[in-house]
Amino acid sequence: MTIEGKDGTLAFRRIRLGMIGGGEGAFIGAVHRIAARLDDHYVLLAGALSASPAKARRSGLAIGLDRDRAYPDYETMLRREEARPDGIEAVAIVTPNHMHAPAAAACLEAGLHVICDKPLATSLAEGRRLRKLTQGRRLVFAVTYNYTGYPMVRQARSMVAAGTLGRIRVVQVEYPQDWLTTRLELTGQKQAAWRTDPARSGKGGAIGDIGTHAFNLAEFVTGLRVSELSADLTRFVAGRRVDDNVQMLLRFRGGARGMLWASQVAPGHENGLKLRVYGETGGLEWVQAEPNYLRWSPFGKAPQVISRGGVAVDAAAARVTRIPGGHPEGYLEAFATLYTEIAAAIRARSDRHRLAPEVQFPGIEEGIRGLVFIEAGLRSAARNARWQRIGTA
Amino acid sequence: MTIEGKDGTLAFRRIRLGMIGGGEGAFIGAVHRIAARLDDHYVLLAGALSASPAKARRSGLAIGLDRDRAYPDYETMLRREEARPDGIEAVAIVTPNHMHAPAAAACLEAGLHVICDKPLATSLAEGRRLRKLTQGRRLVFAVTYNYTGYPMVRQARSMVAAGTLGRIRVVQVEYPQDWLTTRLELTGQKQAAWRTDPARSGKGGAIGDIGTHAFNLAEFVTGLRVSELSADLTRFVAGRRVDDNVQMLLRFRGGARGMLWASQVAPGHENGLKLRVYGETGGLEWVQAEPNYLRWSPFGKAPQVISRGGVAVDAAAARVTRIPGGHPEGYLEAFATLYTEIAAAIRARSDRHRLAPEVQFPGIEEGIRGLVFIEAGLRSAARNARWQRIGTA
Amino acid sequence: MTIEGKDGTLAFRRIRLGMIGGGEGAFIGAVHRIAARLDDHYVLLAGALSASPAKARRSGLAIGLDRDRAYPDYETMLRREEARPDGIEAVAIVTPNHMHAPAAAACLEAGLHVICDKPLATSLAEGRRLRKLTQGRRLVFAVTYNYTGYPMVRQARSMVAAGTLGRIRVVQVEYPQDWLTTRLELTGQKQAAWRTDPARSGKGGAIGDIGTHAFNLAEFVTGLRVSELSADLTRFVAGRRVDDNVQMLLRFRGGARGMLWASQVAPGHENGLKLRVYGETGGLEWVQAEPNYLRWSPFGKAPQVISRGGVAVDAAAARVTRIPGGHPEGYLEAFATLYTEIAAAIRARSDRHRLAPEVQFPGIEEGIRGLVFIEAGLRSAARNARWQRIGTA
Amino acid sequence: MTIEGKDGTLAFRRIRLGMIGGGEGAFIGAVHRIAARLDDHYVLLAGALSASPAKARRSGLAIGLDRDRAYPDYETMLRREEARPDGIEAVAIVTPNHMHAPAAAACLEAGLHVICDKPLATSLAEGRRLRKLTQGRRLVFAVTYNYTGYPMVRQARSMVAAGTLGRIRVVQVEYPQDWLTTRLELTGQKQAAWRTDPARSGKGGAIGDIGTHAFNLAEFVTGLRVSELSADLTRFVAGRRVDDNVQMLLRFRGGARGMLWASQVAPGHENGLKLRVYGETGGLEWVQAEPNYLRWSPFGKAPQVISRGGVAVDAAAARVTRIPGGHPEGYLEAFATLYTEIAAAIRARSDRHRLAPEVQFPGIEEGIRGLVFIEAGLRSAARNARWQRIGTA
Repeated sequence: MTIEGKDGTLAFRRIRLGMIGGGEGAFIGAVHRIAARLDDHYVLLAGALSASPAKARRSGLAIGLDRDRAYPDYETMLRREEARPDGIEAVAIVTPNHMHAPAAAACLEAGLHVICDKPLATSLAEGRRLRKLTQGRRLVFAVTYNYTGYPMVRQARSMVAAGTLGRIRVVQVEYPQDWLTTRLELTGQKQAAWRTDPARSGKGGAIGDIGTHAFNLAEFVTGLRVSELSADLTRFVAGRRVDDNVQMLLRFRGGARGMLWASQVAPGHENGLKLRVYGETGGLEWVQAEPNYLRWSPFGKAPQVISRGGVAVDAAAARVTRIPGGHPEGYLEAFATLYTEIAAAIRARSDRHRLAPEVQFPGIEEGIRGLVFIEAGLRSAARNARWQRIGTA
Repeated sequence: MTIEGKDGTLAFRRIRLGMIGGGEGAFIGAVHRIAARLDDHYVLLAGALSASPAKARRSGLAIGLDRDRAYPDYETMLRREEARPDGIEAVAIVTPNHMHAPAAAACLEAGLHVICDKPLATSLAEGRRLRKLTQGRRLVFAVTYNYTGYPMVRQARSMVAAGTLGRIRVVQVEYPQDWLTTRLELTGQKQAAWRTDPARSGKGGAIGDIGTHAFNLAEFVTGLRVSELSADLTRFVAGRRVDDNVQMLLRFRGGARGMLWASQVAPGHENGLKLRVYGETGGLEWVQAEPNYLRWSPFGKAPQVISRGGVAVDAAAARVTRIPGGHPEGYLEAFATLYTEIAAAIRARSDRHRLAPEVQFPGIEEGIRGLVFIEAGLRSAARNARWQRIGTA
Repeated sequence: MTIEGKDGTLAFRRIRLGMIGGGEGAFIGAVHRIAARLDDHYVLLAGALSASPAKARRSGLAIGLDRDRAYPDYETMLRREEARPDGIEAVAIVTPNHMHAPAAAACLEAGLHVICDKPLATSLAEGRRLRKLTQGRRLVFAVTYNYTGYPMVRQARSMVAAGTLGRIRVVQVEYPQDWLTTRLELTGQKQAAWRTDPARSGKGGAIGDIGTHAFNLAEFVTGLRVSELSADLTRFVAGRRVDDNVQMLLRFRGGARGMLWASQVAPGHENGLKLRVYGETGGLEWVQAEPNYLRWSPFGKAPQVISRGGVAVDAAAARVTRIPGGHPEGYLEAFATLYTEIAAAIRARSDRHRLAPEVQFPGIEEGIRGLVFIEAGLRSAARNARWQRIGTA
Repeated sequence: MTIEGKDGTLAFRRIRLGMIGGGEGAFIGAVHRIAARLDDHYVLLAGALSASPAKARRSGLAIGLDRDRAYPDYETMLRREEARPDGIEAVAIVTPNHMHAPAAAACLEAGLHVICDKPLATSLAEGRRLRKLTQGRRLVFAVTYNYTGYPMVRQARSMVAAGTLGRIRVVQVEYPQDWLTTRLELTGQKQAAWRTDPARSGKGGAIGDIGTHAFNLAEFVTGLRVSELSADLTRFVAGRRVDDNVQMLLRFRGGARGMLWASQVAPGHENGLKLRVYGETGGLEWVQAEPNYLRWSPFGKAPQVISRGGVAVDAAAARVTRIPGGHPEGYLEAFATLYTEIAAAIRARSDRHRLAPEVQFPGIEEGIRGLVFIEAGLRSAARNARWQRIGTA
């Protein structure tokens, strides 16, 4: 129970936070707000919560923002906040994908730290421009690949890094869902509408929305980099404009092989993110829907169930754990862990002290890597699943 | 996602909260603080976080309280806060058990709403005095039997109430842990020390600490009342001063029969709270460590897995759900749900409007019922497990 | 893969077997026949498969018995077989309970080894008479508490015996079913009819049919003996003539405490036999419906899943395992293991060699112990769950 | 409990069986013998159990064959048995792979029914020659893809066939093991030695040994045919002569897409065969290690757990079920079901009656399909995972 800066462990200064997106009908905005509050490192002071000015204002008031800080648009927010002595220091960007890059660029130019939902942008080119903007600025840029915040994911990563599994051979990752089994986007469901609209979500459908999570998780835990991939992308639902099923072969630098499956048309799966890693001396399995457990199979011995907060956790997991084993933490806690680590990074920038190496939230590089992945996947699929190299971007 | 008053659904007025207990080395205090923050209905403004004045002050500052509201003791807090125009309205009491009653009494007398951890007190007599104090005062008194906040527990309760299971026949509830398998209380572990010390925890050990949770959950879900119980209490660890294993037969009014097992010496269990309810037409199973699922077995049909946020949830569960199915919520969210409902109740008292009947947090009666249970259990155990009636208290 | 006398490991002489009961409409008879065949230690040559002579003959022919050995009744079978040079050596008794004792007595008097289904008889007095008949006769008497044949049950037993769990403290055993949730006995279902008829099943219902299995398993695995019990027996289904739900507190010699639940009215459970044993240094859990796995929780370490045929099995389990881990064995294999061990015992008697101590099938003493258990349970229930001592019978 | 011809349902005539292979040190031979015995449709009368004459004789005697029918080699067996009036009618071939085709050819030419383990042969050309030999002969030719015998696999197949899942979109199948994680073949372990030796197992390693099972299961359940595949095959263990890890993209005729993973180097998996099928209206999941359950997720409703022998089984599953739900059947029972169905087919040929369409054991076509799959996989892997068409062979 030692998240850096968590309850009781750090002298307090809450980060002054603004938010772009996340108004009425949104999903991930409320998640970010809870995540920011949970460990008490932020105070949300300003927002431009919708692309519609009226809705933006209304949404801001509904969540308790002060009248003069519930802004109609983010340009106004950035301008006015800059003028305030108590203006915001950081911004959470939780819009549909196509707004990530312009909003993030504006925030960077306003000298604000950025917490951006994934994927970073709708094209690799955009992502690279953002990276350029970060250069030379002492600003934190985080991309919320939130599954990296789960304690048992951290333990998996540290076990691999410590060599507990030996050299990694096989990496199987999957992220099946079923919510787009039918053409939900025609029903007025807001999430389905924008996530299947190339203009707002980018050219990728499932590959961008959930495939990137799977890809990020695989690389985060193994520390390996995919060197090439072969992708079969499908649109199973008639009329859908983006892929809703992704199947890939992966090859990693160093020789490991993998498979990645992401689907939005797999009935029975809500958010079935699952990672399995096999090395010369053992195997690991982690399932997002039961995130408090890590199955560890040392070769030649009985498989073990390592539980978050339990007797077999290592320092990497313990550091991001709030409550004892058997009392489950979940998605919001993992998300909050990223926020807490981002707060530590923001304070480190402000105070010019070194950030502890254990702080592991994904940043601009992971964001760009996700875009490289999407583009390689789309290119491979367009070429009948021919192998595509993934560079270092 | 419609917790009354949750993010985006209610015009905002945050409850001004104080806290008694929960300083350095405490467990449940930090949980209450997160729970209060999570849905943004409270602002923690004052605290007397320890029985030791110096530690109380230090702990208060560490969590970011203002210098003048990090009080050395709760009497001072109550006195000074009463004098402030922006004084606290409600107090969370998160001390060891023996301090619950005096602190709660003082708060009630100061006209403050009370959120008290369980068990309500260390004796039934104390509990009854508290109840007396609540009478005639328009104050909310909540007892945080936190497992009642889980969405699938709410669904279980509403399914039983709707008659989906038919008349209830059998109720099996258990709460095994293993953390006291050895004599941890001798090692300086603070939680073990006070929880096995009759002077601080009350005469019951496991029966009070976790048995009450199991009992409360069984009655909460089934809507039934235990009419008599037969208890075998054991102290397996040599030298321990309170019971560490509880085994009971239960009889319910109306004819249902049950068993209750609570143990702190069951290796392999962290917080193994589990409830199973069987009626004429179906059975339910819920396991706290995997709280997002409810197993429902309609007699003569295939068992189903109902998931929180999923396609088969009812209104009672949906109302207290924040995020979609497959993205797990956990212990802190369930705890936060109680806080959010308590906030609604506090506002209802202030505004003299009726509280929605769906608000279901446990109150003084459930608190007293827990004490009746403990005393009946201890009495039965002292009489070689002879049946003891449980009155209406 | 070293069951004594199994495929390939013993010079062959198949035991000549007869059967009493198990004709048309029966359940357990076919199970015994498969169990006898599976490891090839028996050849079924004669049968009196029903109390109705015509049905007995017809049933015998249907399963391929020779015309002259498909007998109309067991008296005839015993008489005629005795006269044959190739007459049967052993008899499997698979009738409804009330016929066990008379049939077994007749077999013993005819000098035949007996394999009797459980419970041994419908009264303790009958059981004792049978035991008397075995004395002085060099005959094997087996009682098919078949769950003792599961490899992981054997491993659990040997782990307890080796002290791996330390001194045992808590034993939780349960056997819920749901098939008698409604009054199935009125529908003509043969199994329900006799099992709820005191004249054929004995005074106990669930307590005799499945409670005895739970009790046997608890004692078999722990090696402990229950010294007293307190029982609440219920008939939930209106009009039913025997108990359909059993709830008990158990006290073991040496200080361990336990609970036993057996139910036939618990919707969602088919054959939910489950045993959990907790000692000073670890806990074990075994579930009959997933019999190939044993969950072992060494205190202070991560729980492990030991799989039948896998890397962590001990000699006791390996000895009764046929196929590799991950290829499940089930109920019939466990049953067959008893038959194979019984064959070894029969050969040992014939050849006057010592039987290996690893052979562990239940015999007349376990059969009698089951009757003691039933009678104590019924007596306790009749006295409002007052404690009843269980002697050594 | 209505397997055609099973215990009690058919006038009896046991098939006279011989066996080739399966002597000392073998694994699958003993499995076939148990499978043949279990439902009592065969009597094993003759055998040539090893390629070594002395070992063949010794092994035959050890399992109880008559002295004159424990043959030194299969040619002798076929010649002598043909001459006997009570000679064998059918032969089980359970040798290493390279002997399948010559032995099967000899049996067919001797007019005997053949039950051949998988894969059918070590090359497609061999397989085709065998098929030619079956033409015009009224002989049964079975290939023991044994997983098709599991009741819940049958139910999965019949649910797909009935359209319960709608049009199939995605098929995910995997078969991970871990037994070849190290170079076991160098230790003298007989199974590892021949299965990694191209001269005895064929050019494929994991692809032939377990990949074929996965492939067969996917086609068996879905009724779909793979039209092309893209395969990445790896040899992770240094010095190994065949692949030990197989990763594939699959495309099915009609548009479904799939993935197949087979591995022998995945620590933590014993025999992790698992099939998932997703259609427009629902998804199915079946796991071989817990074969008595089928998870069925109708889109938009709560997932259900259908249990073998339980309330939700259909006729296809019930027909091949022996014992009630909750009493697990396993690998040997599924294998025995194939034997029982093969017996029915043999009797149908002899008696010239029509075989019930529900009899579904795999035959020569499925055997050849497995070889087509292996060759396409090897070819694709050799071409950097280029798509290879799978014809109708």
